[in-house]
Amino acid sequence: MNSDLIQRALAEDGAFADITTLSTVPAEQQARGSIVTRQEGVVAGLHVAAETFQTLDPRIEIEFLVQDGATVQRGDLLLRLSGPARSILSAERVALNFLGRLSGIATTTALCVRAVEGSRARILDTRKTTPGLRSLEKEAVQLGGGQNHRFGLSDGVLIKDNHIKAAGGIPQAIAAARHQAPHLLKIEVECETLAEVEQALQADADVILLDNMDLETMRTAVRLIRQQAPRVLIEASGSIGTNASRLVAVAETGVDFISLGALTHSAPNFDISLEFA
Amino acid sequence: MNSDLIQRALAEDGAFADITTLSTVPAEQQARGSIVTRQEGVVAGLHVAAETFQTLDPRIEIEFLVQDGATVQRGDLLLRLSGPARSILSAERVALNFLGRLSGIATTTALCVRAVEGSRARILDTRKTTPGLRSLEKEAVQLGGGQNHRFGLSDGVLIKDNHIKAAGGIPQAIAAARHQAPHLLKIEVECETLAEVEQALQADADVILLDNMDLETMRTAVRLIRQQAPRVLIEASGSIGTNASRLVAVAETGVDFISLGALTHSAPNFDISLEFA
Amino acid sequence: MNSDLIQRALAEDGAFADITTLSTVPAEQQARGSIVTRQEGVVAGLHVAAETFQTLDPRIEIEFLVQDGATVQRGDLLLRLSGPARSILSAERVALNFLGRLSGIATTTALCVRAVEGSRARILDTRKTTPGLRSLEKEAVQLGGGQNHRFGLSDGVLIKDNHIKAAGGIPQAIAAARHQAPHLLKIEVECETLAEVEQALQADADVILLDNMDLETMRTAVRLIRQQAPRVLIEASGSIGTNASRLVAVAETGVDFISLGALTHSAPNFDISLEFA
Amino acid sequence: MNSDLIQRALAEDGAFADITTLSTVPAEQQARGSIVTRQEGVVAGLHVAAETFQTLDPRIEIEFLVQDGATVQRGDLLLRLSGPARSILSAERVALNFLGRLSGIATTTALCVRAVEGSRARILDTRKTTPGLRSLEKEAVQLGGGQNHRFGLSDGVLIKDNHIKAAGGIPQAIAAARHQAPHLLKIEVECETLAEVEQALQADADVILLDNMDLETMRTAVRLIRQQAPRVLIEASGSIGTNASRLVAVAETGVDFISLGALTHSAPNFDISLEFA
Amino acid sequence: MNSDLIQRALAEDGAFADITTLSTVPAEQQARGSIVTRQEGVVAGLHVAAETFQTLDPRIEIEFLVQDGATVQRGDLLLRLSGPARSILSAERVALNFLGRLSGIATTTALCVRAVEGSRARILDTRKTTPGLRSLEKEAVQLGGGQNHRFGLSDGVLIKDNHIKAAGGIPQAIAAARHQAPHLLKIEVECETLAEVEQALQADADVILLDNMDLETMRTAVRLIRQQAPRVLIEASGSIGTNASRLVAVAETGVDFISLGALTHSAPNFDISLEFA
Amino acid sequence: MNSDLIQRALAEDGAFADITTLSTVPAEQQARGSIVTRQEGVVAGLHVAAETFQTLDPRIEIEFLVQDGATVQRGDLLLRLSGPARSILSAERVALNFLGRLSGIATTTALCVRAVEGSRARILDTRKTTPGLRSLEKEAVQLGGGQNHRFGLSDGVLIKDNHIKAAGGIPQAIAAARHQAPHLLKIEVECETLAEVEQALQADADVILLDNMDLETMRTAVRLIRQQAPRVLIEASGSIGTNASRLVAVAETGVDFISLGALTHSAPNFDISLEFA
Repeated sequence: MNSDLIQRALAEDGAFADITTLSTVPAEQQARGSIVTRQEGVVAGLHVAAETFQTLDPRIEIEFLVQDGATVQRGDLLLRLSGPARSILSAERVALNFLGRLSGIATTTALCVRAVEGSRARILDTRKTTPGLRSLEKEAVQLGGGQNHRFGLSDGVLIKDNHIKAAGGIPQAIAAARHQAPHLLKIEVECETLAEVEQALQADADVILLDNMDLETMRTAVRLIRQQAPRVLIEASGSIGTNASRLVAVAETGVDFISLGALTHSAPNFDISLEFA
Repeated sequence: MNSDLIQRALAEDGAFADITTLSTVPAEQQARGSIVTRQEGVVAGLHVAAETFQTLDPRIEIEFLVQDGATVQRGDLLLRLSGPARSILSAERVALNFLGRLSGIATTTALCVRAVEGSRARILDTRKTTPGLRSLEKEAVQLGGGQNHRFGLSDGVLIKDNHIKAAGGIPQAIAAARHQAPHLLKIEVECETLAEVEQALQADADVILLDNMDLETMRTAVRLIRQQAPRVLIEASGSIGTNASRLVAVAETGVDFISLGALTHSAPNFDISLEFA
Repeated sequence: MNSDLIQRALAEDGAFADITTLSTVPAEQQARGSIVTRQEGVVAGLHVAAETFQTLDPRIEIEFLVQDGATVQRGDLLLRLSGPARSILSAERVALNFLGRLSGIATTTALCVRAVEGSRARILDTRKTTPGLRSLEKEAVQLGGGQNHRFGLSDGVLIKDNHIKAAGGIPQAIAAARHQAPHLLKIEVECETLAEVEQALQADADVILLDNMDLETMRTAVRLIRQQAPRVLIEASGSIGTNASRLVAVAETGVDFISLGALTHSAPNFDISLEFA
Repeated sequence: MNSDLIQRALAEDGAFADITTLSTVPAEQQARGSIVTRQEGVVAGLHVAAETFQTLDPRIEIEFLVQDGATVQRGDLLLRLSGPARSILSAERVALNFLGRLSGIATTTALCVRAVEGSRARILDTRKTTPGLRSLEKEAVQLGGGQNHRFGLSDGVLIKDNHIKAAGGIPQAIAAARHQAPHLLKIEVECETLAEVEQALQADADVILLDNMDLETMRTAVRLIRQQAPRVLIEASGSIGTNASRLVAVAETGVDFISLGALTHSAPNFDISLEFA
Repeated sequence: MNSDLIQRALAEDGAFADITTLSTVPAEQQARGSIVTRQEGVVAGLHVAAETFQTLDPRIEIEFLVQDGATVQRGDLLLRLSGPARSILSAERVALNFLGRLSGIATTTALCVRAVEGSRARILDTRKTTPGLRSLEKEAVQLGGGQNHRFGLSDGVLIKDNHIKAAGGIPQAIAAARHQAPHLLKIEVECETLAEVEQALQADADVILLDNMDLETMRTAVRLIRQQAPRVLIEASGSIGTNASRLVAVAETGVDFISLGALTHSAPNFDISLEFA
Repeated sequence: MNSDLIQRALAEDGAFADITTLSTVPAEQQARGSIVTRQEGVVAGLHVAAETFQTLDPRIEIEFLVQDGATVQRGDLLLRLSGPARSILSAERVALNFLGRLSGIATTTALCVRAVEGSRARILDTRKTTPGLRSLEKEAVQLGGGQNHRFGLSDGVLIKDNHIKAAGGIPQAIAAARHQAPHLLKIEVECETLAEVEQALQADADVILLDNMDLETMRTAVRLIRQQAPRVLIEASGSIGTNASRLVAVAETGVDFISLGALTHSAPNFDISLEFA
């Protein structure tokens, strides 16, 4: 199901007409190589990278030395490749671009997950993903130990400030969503103040998102919700970032989830390369 | 030409079936809002963002308050939007995802360009871009003041170590490329040692890439090339990163170009939001 | 967002090369006509039909005399068309095919909704839709007064017998889903016996689907659930069909929802035609 | 050639991200199952169903126990499946949706064909098919023993009332079509009265469509045509429906063909299911 | 309906990233120009050319000075263009490539049509067209005064030698086609000898194709067919070519149609250019 | 990478619904055949033809008797095919259409290359290719011994008269291109007079295109360039055509390259056929 994306990425890179390789590497030359990490972290995208090589040339053979989601050390070998030298060279950059980005996300996620270990808080992604790569990026979050928030606007109800204004208030917005949205979806409401939290509780929200609250307010909100409605899930959000001590502080307020746009929109690239034998 | 990408991004986000908005916001409600920066930098992607809104609903009207490439301050208004509230809300995230990523790249590029100001060195991007977004990301580099390296494998000759090995040496590789590649393309050769630089000069390379050299070797290489072949262009590369003092040091070696994968693969997201009136 | 589907449908019908029309109708001839019902019911698909005509030829002008979801009588005019005669003729069949199918679904749904009026039961569709037309068919169900079940497998959790077997039991299946599925999704479990209903309740299911139960068992199940877990929603399913008295009997058991595959997979075509002035 | 359609149908159903199955069924679990009929009739779509399973996962192995076009009894096994349990479950609904619709059409067609057995009349489909599924639906008609009318507007000439008006009369319309349409196509003319039949005969039509005529008029028309032009083929049409005695009456007028929109636009779904071993 | 083709052609030419134009022509510069012929002939493709320019940039305004199908002299102006200079330059080559090829076909066709003027023979094209351009090429044949043979394999029956062998003889092949093909299609049979012509007549073929016959045999065949079956149409084929005297000789045998692969597969390019004011 | 093109070409030909073949050839019949030349020349497109057959039916087995680029004599066998008779017949025309066009280009190119043998001039193609087929046509030029000019507008700088006008002169245009175009691209300038050649030399062009010059002027231009700038490459262009003596005369002026639109836009079809055993 990634085949279109991979095809487009290879076409975008001109990989089917790699003039340097076509002019300098003989057609019949075979090569062997490995994908090697240059840093530690959690790898993601190995299957996409493998499919990239094989999309360019099905004769490239690939051995998985680790699986997606593995924690690796600098210098670890991930995939072993053998096949026509031209094809391996022409597909290399696209394959590494996938691997670098997705492993970067998995690695960043793993660091955040580790930071809050011991708390009840689980790390969530958001919809702040790269256009066209959402499936892969959300899978990378999972591989890093994170949990996915809704995939998109069609598969979850999250009522934000503008929805509330438009509907005329939190109770009206929740009632409207309850009436029209598919019955298998919970209703989440974004709250910026304790007053809004109170309203959301009275209107029987299923999940409450504490957005951009300071820690003190967040603690109060959590306490309030736990007392009045123990079934309600609590998510913290709002430019929290991936800093570990900040994450710990948020987790200690007792929320169930912390959602982080930075997992996908600002994860630094993972350093990885292809080395020929 | 971005319309397919935008369509796919909106579909990926479920923007045509935004159940929260459809159930809480009346169909006939109109809204006005603005795209606002939350940090300073160089903006890119405004046209893509505008096209995203209008792809979802052509009735959304958009006024450009600044143009792509503008340097902005925190709090500046970029676009003014008016139209059906539902449509603006449903397209918001995808539009912001484009803007955040592309402005992040333009801003990072602008910082690097400013760092080497006064030197002859120009900042180049690489092929380390996000699969599917190369055109937009390379345009963002330009907007930030950088220059584009080749777009892909089909429109430039860059002979790397594996090509050299396969061809049997630098002279053979250059000769092969010269013979077969289109006559409008220069031949660039990647060199890691001074000995390789000497070979590339003797084989009449048009451009020499100094890859992963320490500063001292780089300086020697530049001197050598300027003496022997003043027409030859010189590019520095290899995990240089976006640190300003490092960039200055590389620029002071006298190279013509510094290419940076980090411009596109590790630029942090630009903070930007949609605010309703 | 239906434009691809419409394009494909017109291409499939050879509407861009309608040899009869091209050879018998002069290029410059203009025509006026109306879409007219030949039966009573609820219409759906008017926007798709209009887009079909205008995809073939943007010069066709269309006036909506009623809106999608309107209840109409035999002989009512729905759309008024004017424009190039050739284009109207060439697009006619595809436009009517959409209208006939979608109005058939809306009309069938409306009959079922009317049948259970006065009860708490709401009529739901299923995933038993025509491949490629799910969005339109689910919209037609809404226009007929029905409510949509989940759109597809990625946006709702419905644990069926095979999932239960695979997971090792109802409690295990619910726990697994709770742990991995996005936190905005409720967990629905399909139960065929009262024993299964008990297990689902103990495992804290959010929604229980009573599948293929006789009325007596269904009544008992509803009573059991209401006593033990008043928050739990109840859905009845299993070849119930669109027969009104059967629907009334099921509704009277007290379930919240009745889901009907027949709404979409066996709705008879709605009789509708294009008449020229 | 159905691969695009199948891909789209699976994507539409979210089958590549079946969250229930992914969370409750272990990745390595294997399953065996069968596609079983729950009613008698003629099956169609087995190849499409098989391709659907294998598009989702090429590791699913499929054994055909009957072929498309087979007449089956309630309870007959049609396909035997084995492979990864997850994949079989995720593809099940789309595969059954194809089978249910296409077997419904084949079964309805077979009933109509049987009704007119012994007469010279053959049962034809029309262009009243589901948008996007015409090839498959017309194939199902063939499997049920029916014959296909033209596939679309580009591969047959059928002059209807509006064409006649536009051309200025039946003779003018036929002459125009004869002059411009490819020489391998016959010219069919739709007639609602005996006067029109006379004109069509004089203008040397190849095929005459008797549209919406009562039985008495139809009989007269057939006699007239047989006398004057024994080479001319005769088709009856116009909301005839699938009622057997009505079909017999029409067939007894002596027409060569009876075309029925209901074969494809109103065939009830065929009841079929997947059962695990 | 040509929009995909045009999009692909522009993308193939890199027209959205025309680096020469982008670097040398200011963004705001406007230009005016004309499409001018450099030879005489019949023009085709003007609408495609116009759509090409407007696909690249909808701001380009186009005035048609002649219509497709017009006979033009060297130096005639065909289209007048005005708009952004960059866009006109970037779309120029693709637009001219369409025009040159299609006008070449129309012009070649017109010469063949003129050659046989006065005879009953009409000039037909074949399926020997450029992959991807069949619609446009067949339209160009029409514009040149030729008539289209069947569009493709799905809309006409033409029984060739291999079909005859496979079916067991001409009578069997015709009977099989008559039984299964849609009833609106005539049956054409390819014959290479008089004996085959006799068989085709006895088996009641609708159209007979005289393939690769010398003129003497062709004359005899025509006489034979006219005597025995005056309704049967006769087509001559088989590497006849576009030489005028050869065409006259074939036409004088009395055939109804002469089909020519060379119209589409070997028509020389039409010389045409874009000149700026 | 040609698979989309091949799919579209087969669909365009109706090859998946070849009614003649389906009705006359039994499903189980097997056939053997060969692709045979009917003229001498250089063949191209064998891989595309093979992929065409196997796209229609993967069961068709193909043996390559010669490779793309081979020089063949009339009557040579190129490919041997075996497999289902229906599939071979249905794919035949599209496969031959590719072969005829591409071998025509390779053959025409080879004649031009042979004409200038012994001179330094190499034969180049242009962007005057068939929309949608550029990759294949440029590959055919290579197979015929020609060299490719730039692939499209995004991968080479060629400054023509309109760019010069827009930029304000040759020096300004070259400077602008040098500043903005990727540094791996040479700058080519089209010159129609000796004065323009002088300007291009002074502005340090990398390649000079002598456009539409008479032989005498061309000789003078070549002498001038060799004296002043021996590194500069020289290309001749402008309706030179494929006439051998004309090519020799141009080559004798001493240019490095002769570019010929006629290679791709006016190459006559190569005569080739499929013969069954």
